Amino acid sequence: MKRTSAKFLKIMLMSCAVALCSQVHAQSVEVYPPHWWVDMKWNKVQLLVHGTQENFNKSDVTLTYPGITLDKVHRLENSRYYALDITVAPGTKPGNVSIDIGAKGKMKSVAWSLLPRRTGKGTTYAQGVNAGDFMYLLMPDRFSNGDVTNDRVAGMRDQTLNRDSIYHRHGGDLQGVINHLDYLQSMGVTALWMTPVIENNMPNRTEHGYAITNHYKIDPRLGNSDTYKKLSDELHKRGMKLVQDAVYNHSGLYHVTVQDKPVKDWLHEWPTYTNTNYRDATWMDPHGNEAERKRMADGWFTPMMPDLNHGNLYMANYLIQHALWSVEEFGVDAWRIDTYIYCDLEFMNRCNAALLDEYPNLHLFGECWVTGTMNQAYFVENNISTPFKSNLPGATDFQTVFSIVASMQNANDGLNRFYAMLSNDFAYKDPMKMVTFLDNHDMTRFYTQVGEDLDKYKIGLGWLLTGRGIPQLYYGDEVLMKGATHPADGWVRLDFPGGWKGDKKNAFTGENLSAIEKQTQEFLKTLANFRKHSSAIRTGKLMQYIPQDGLYVYFRYDDAQTLMCVINLNEASKNVSLSDYAERTKSFVGGKDVVSGKAFGSTFSISGKSMLIIELGK
Amino acid sequence: MKRTSAKFLKIMLMSCAVALCSQVHAQSVEVYPPHWWVDMKWNKVQLLVHGTQENFNKSDVTLTYPGITLDKVHRLENSRYYALDITVAPGTKPGNVSIDIGAKGKMKSVAWSLLPRRTGKGTTYAQGVNAGDFMYLLMPDRFSNGDVTNDRVAGMRDQTLNRDSIYHRHGGDLQGVINHLDYLQSMGVTALWMTPVIENNMPNRTEHGYAITNHYKIDPRLGNSDTYKKLSDELHKRGMKLVQDAVYNHSGLYHVTVQDKPVKDWLHEWPTYTNTNYRDATWMDPHGNEAERKRMADGWFTPMMPDLNHGNLYMANYLIQHALWSVEEFGVDAWRIDTYIYCDLEFMNRCNAALLDEYPNLHLFGECWVTGTMNQAYFVENNISTPFKSNLPGATDFQTVFSIVASMQNANDGLNRFYAMLSNDFAYKDPMKMVTFLDNHDMTRFYTQVGEDLDKYKIGLGWLLTGRGIPQLYYGDEVLMKGATHPADGWVRLDFPGGWKGDKKNAFTGENLSAIEKQTQEFLKTLANFRKHSSAIRTGKLMQYIPQDGLYVYFRYDDAQTLMCVINLNEASKNVSLSDYAERTKSFVGGKDVVSGKAFGSTFSISGKSMLIIELGK
Repeated sequence: MKRTSAKFLKIMLMSCAVALCSQVHAQSVEVYPPHWWVDMKWNKVQLLVHGTQENFNKSDVTLTYPGITLDKVHRLENSRYYALDITVAPGTKPGNVSIDIGAKGKMKSVAWSLLPRRTGKGTTYAQGVNAGDFMYLLMPDRFSNGDVTNDRVAGMRDQTLNRDSIYHRHGGDLQGVINHLDYLQSMGVTALWMTPVIENNMPNRTEHGYAITNHYKIDPRLGNSDTYKKLSDELHKRGMKLVQDAVYNHSGLYHVTVQDKPVKDWLHEWPTYTNTNYRDATWMDPHGNEAERKRMADGWFTPMMPDLNHGNLYMANYLIQHALWSVEEFGVDAWRIDTYIYCDLEFMNRCNAALLDEYPNLHLFGECWVTGTMNQAYFVENNISTPFKSNLPGATDFQTVFSIVASMQNANDGLNRFYAMLSNDFAYKDPMKMVTFLDNHDMTRFYTQVGEDLDKYKIGLGWLLTGRGIPQLYYGDEVLMKGATHPADGWVRLDFPGGWKGDKKNAFTGENLSAIEKQTQEFLKTLANFRKHSSAIRTGKLMQYIPQDGLYVYFRYDDAQTLMCVINLNEASKNVSLSDYAERTKSFVGGKDVVSGKAFGSTFSISGKSMLIIELGK
Repeated sequence: MKRTSAKFLKIMLMSCAVALCSQVHAQSVEVYPPHWWVDMKWNKVQLLVHGTQENFNKSDVTLTYPGITLDKVHRLENSRYYALDITVAPGTKPGNVSIDIGAKGKMKSVAWSLLPRRTGKGTTYAQGVNAGDFMYLLMPDRFSNGDVTNDRVAGMRDQTLNRDSIYHRHGGDLQGVINHLDYLQSMGVTALWMTPVIENNMPNRTEHGYAITNHYKIDPRLGNSDTYKKLSDELHKRGMKLVQDAVYNHSGLYHVTVQDKPVKDWLHEWPTYTNTNYRDATWMDPHGNEAERKRMADGWFTPMMPDLNHGNLYMANYLIQHALWSVEEFGVDAWRIDTYIYCDLEFMNRCNAALLDEYPNLHLFGECWVTGTMNQAYFVENNISTPFKSNLPGATDFQTVFSIVASMQNANDGLNRFYAMLSNDFAYKDPMKMVTFLDNHDMTRFYTQVGEDLDKYKIGLGWLLTGRGIPQLYYGDEVLMKGATHPADGWVRLDFPGGWKGDKKNAFTGENLSAIEKQTQEFLKTLANFRKHSSAIRTGKLMQYIPQDGLYVYFRYDDAQTLMCVINLNEASKNVSLSDYAERTKSFVGGKDVVSGKAFGSTFSISGKSMLIIELGK
């Protein structure tokens, strides 16, 4: 019964197709990805070809280019779309490829190209980030306005431009970032992670960038493809790295493929709006149920962000190829993956594998906003035998920030929590691949978290820059930017001082910074530049001791260098003796604080609410 | 230099030995273990032979018995001790074995015997406990006094006997337990775990039993070897099981082998008294240090409980053989291991392996008083790849009690914690082997924890008896016994009402129990007897749903039976619809509460602060 009606329907559709298929040459056509490269491992590419008129996909397709075979033409449910499977044979030469659609005389020739590979894979791009790096996270709309001509772009849905509103656009852009790379470099930053720079042609709240509307277009308010490439080049010229923020879970509601879906199940759609339950446990719970797991993965993150159906192979290919394309096109070094835990994890494994297969040095880290090491470990490469095994190398390490913040609120409980958290690192395949931080664009600023207590704040920074993992600083934290996510997250996304012409306060030049702002900036600069050349931090090990009455001691060490890090969260000073930590100190007689340069003997006192980072010496 | 002086010392010692070795026959001698069995897998036995005089071990030893070979005579550092390695060949007949020590004419003949095996291994003893069991934990001094003649035993160090003091002995004993097995059976109890019944000849606080002074002697105030065997037989006659509480980490300070140490390193001794740091993280921390790990394992638990050196092979054999001996001698079914995380874990693996090799069905569960599933999982068979792998099948599941208690204090946070805790069960090889509980002899009584709120209390009991794992009830909880561990743990070790002649209140007969005490007892009895025959609980699976606003729903199920457990921690009632849990309810139209017998349809209301355990029907 079912089969008969399906056949009938097919015949009906084919009859219509023949009748309507005529206007191919008159329409504009987009191809995703817009180009590819020769000699890629991913050489079986699926081109999504999008016309503007009905029945576009009823015509014949020919693609003639030496070394490229057109393996299969998929005419998608939406007749405005083809998916073309091609194979680029090894040794194929770069050049312009013509995709010809339609019958003779009415043929549309769609331009597509095959480029030579970017040079320097693994050395000047796709290098990865590691514990030797110091990553700076910024929101390009809020960092610096380097090009006032693109502040408002005609035709885009969001026409706001108002620095007085946390909800409106402020005009920051990629050129603004480029202009200040020397500043970042001088601060000891080695890697730059920006919130997404891809087009977000949404009606409002476009400052964050997580509602992508066209994967293959840089948001024109931030710049264009050339500006982004220039930024990448300028970073690499300085020995710095580029981290791209990827969004797989959802797109913006106004994405071109959402407004005109290639296939019916391009998105996860529900009878009525259904958001995710935001419960990562549903993935791993051996006692869990399928309904809640499905809602976690397939429910929408917000009503403005449709949940992409990674189970659809056209969709999956679209995202995987965009990831590969981005790395090659822009020279990306590391890949931060937004809302990782809401994605289809099997798809993520395929996507990660494709990236790592093509770029073995690339670091990938997912946003895993969860509580508990086991929960975090589940989403990355781990030492736990489970039915599902993730191949994601790293995660944003929320466990670290939770327990550092807790330490500032209650020294003993918090330090014990931090100590216990690290002791659970055996769950991870490599805890050094976790990205540690004190705050980010979704969290209350750390300076606000610690009640604007400068002493605690500096301990946090010292801890971040000497602890295990890959540290990330949020823009402006070096000059004590404040703000809480309540009542609105915009309050943690304020403009970087000095990023706009006429700013009274300028963190780049130091103009009108307060004494403590300057002092914090200098402190961070000293420490970040120290760690650039510290083998103990870059590639060494960690050894920690049980916190005792608000005092926490850990070591970073290798054969060449031993750093003794002492945190005293008490108001009162504490005495410290190297001999209490003999396993790491026995060959040393004292040392020198790497920030102040002050010398310390084998016993010393650490003042209240402070941290010492002592390089031990013989 | 070092080597030369050692040699000199050795010659000196040997000369003295020859001169003094003469009085063997005049002394009393003990052998540990006092007997063994034929056809044991553990057939290479090390006999620790203890004389009372110096130079006892300088004489010759002969042991002549068909099938037994004396493989090696170890003359220990303490000249009052031999260790004799013997092999009992397969097929050796039971009988009396004579161990002859000394020269002809002055020979001491020490009696030792080889017994036939206990019958019914794995079926009438060494059966294990599992999720189908309901375990009752009692302290024999505080449960019932069945033999007033042994209340105070002449010659023992603790001569207290005063029921008015929580610190003194109360006279309870094994006969008292035997007298009330029918009561326990009627309550639905299927397994009995008593705090240790082995001699604790210590000066005070002897009620708990964890300071053993002679492994091979039942504490005479509780009974003797025969009483304990009778208890075992009476349990087995009723289809019930015996759980023995083992203590490996320490002994009492007055243990015979502590007062007269066989070898210098029988104990972990420190230059000055050094207690453990009580930090389980030191075991697993990949960033940990050796000094703190050593202090965790080798530091003393209390000054009255010397830490046994499991690294010494004589000590290790002594403990392993006592474990095997106890199971065979008394017909033990399961083995609860005290202070597990403080023991030498490699030794524990050897000990567990010996027990499981001999008794494959035996269940072993360790006291793992830790916070966090990963920490607990580390000490049991788990799914985590770590340098050290435990072979312990189960643990006392403190994570369950922590999160149930938290739920009673804050419904949403607590339920979420409980839900999250279960979702982490993927860390365990088999979470059903965890022993769950609401309190024990070291913890504030659950009734006190919930502020004597009967509704919450009954939810806790219902949860315990339907949740995953092997439930354990602490004596007296069935009649609302209260007490907090502060100011002293004795307050949670009060006498069971009716256990002493003349008690006004009697929980065995119901005399003078309050209405709510009777009601609670009846509730528990109904539920515990129900679960005896519930395949869903005994061998079925668990499925849980995300807690929603103080409502928590989980299922126990198999092909034959589905139980829907609904917990409402709100003051107000809540509506429940089977269709919200379709994965488990779709073939059912309603059900019947297993306690009240009340029928429920496909939608129903659950009143505030209550639990329903509904057996679903079609």
